[in-house]
Amino acid sequence: MMERFTEKTIKKDLIYKGRIIDLSLHEVTLPNGGTSKREIVNHPGAVAVIAVTEENKLILVNQYRKPLEKVIAEIPAGKLEKGEDPLECAKRELEEETGFIANKWTDLSSFYTSPGFADELIYLFLAEELSEGTENLDEDEFVECFEVTLDEAERLIKNQSIHDAKTIIALQYLLLQKK
Amino acid sequence: MMERFTEKTIKKDLIYKGRIIDLSLHEVTLPNGGTSKREIVNHPGAVAVIAVTEENKLILVNQYRKPLEKVIAEIPAGKLEKGEDPLECAKRELEEETGFIANKWTDLSSFYTSPGFADELIYLFLAEELSEGTENLDEDEFVECFEVTLDEAERLIKNQSIHDAKTIIALQYLLLQKK
Repeated sequence: MMERFTEKTIKKDLIYKGRIIDLSLHEVTLPNGGTSKREIVNHPGAVAVIAVTEENKLILVNQYRKPLEKVIAEIPAGKLEKGEDPLECAKRELEEETGFIANKWTDLSSFYTSPGFADELIYLFLAEELSEGTENLDEDEFVECFEVTLDEAERLIKNQSIHDAKTIIALQYLLLQKK
Repeated sequence: MMERFTEKTIKKDLIYKGRIIDLSLHEVTLPNGGTSKREIVNHPGAVAVIAVTEENKLILVNQYRKPLEKVIAEIPAGKLEKGEDPLECAKRELEEETGFIANKWTDLSSFYTSPGFADELIYLFLAEELSEGTENLDEDEFVECFEVTLDEAERLIKNQSIHDAKTIIALQYLLLQKK
């Protein structure tokens, strides 16, 4: 489909190979025969989890995000380990960040977060029938969990207290299910 | 709020200063007194536009995204120029990419796309009362516009033909308005 839009890489420089992301500079041929440069961040991909409690509340996580220099509220999420199955990653991240295990998992969808400059793909899962497991954060990870009703979550979106794309997608998904 | 979560930068290396993004490596102090490294992509921010035609159709744009090595469908969007007002940017990008001018603009919200590694913030606008302007793409930009009904858009989300976070947020927003 639309092969005429394809940009072929004619030269690729790996600028940085990091712990989480890599950065490359591609020189590409354009559909009109010209050339341009594309700065590309490669990311391992991630999962995000809509975790709904027995009381029909949604679990959110406050986390300091260094790129933003502030704490924001998000649904539980985390990066894929190399070769890790997204569902296994979702189970691991939910327990690590919130201490909950879910008995019922539903694969909802996936989406690219920043296709203009990065290949990050997030897999979104719904986790239900929660029970207590063992919270166990990464050694450089500090988070605080809290629970909100769907009505509260709707207000948090409207007043932009929730400011994170994957979390907005998750909450809008629940709101659409309800209506 | 939650200053105890703050990660202070003790050393910052600028790894790459690019045309669109910059990459830095921060060494930070953690809440527990330890240190860690954070790879941070700085991005100028962007706008995205929900453009609704007289026939109540939504305008989508097919565009080749080099990080994904494929064409995906998105709502019209583009990066902020330095110091540019988001609404002015939205007007510019809508006309450049689709050839449409809108008489009625509504500022809907904003969201971070990848807060774990990037500071990109997208401002989302609703554009209505469209009339024809002048399509005028950037010299290295090649796109193809098409229109869908909201029902078609809903199917495109469900079968994951729409795979882009900002576009899913936009479509879910419209679906919630309707219901």
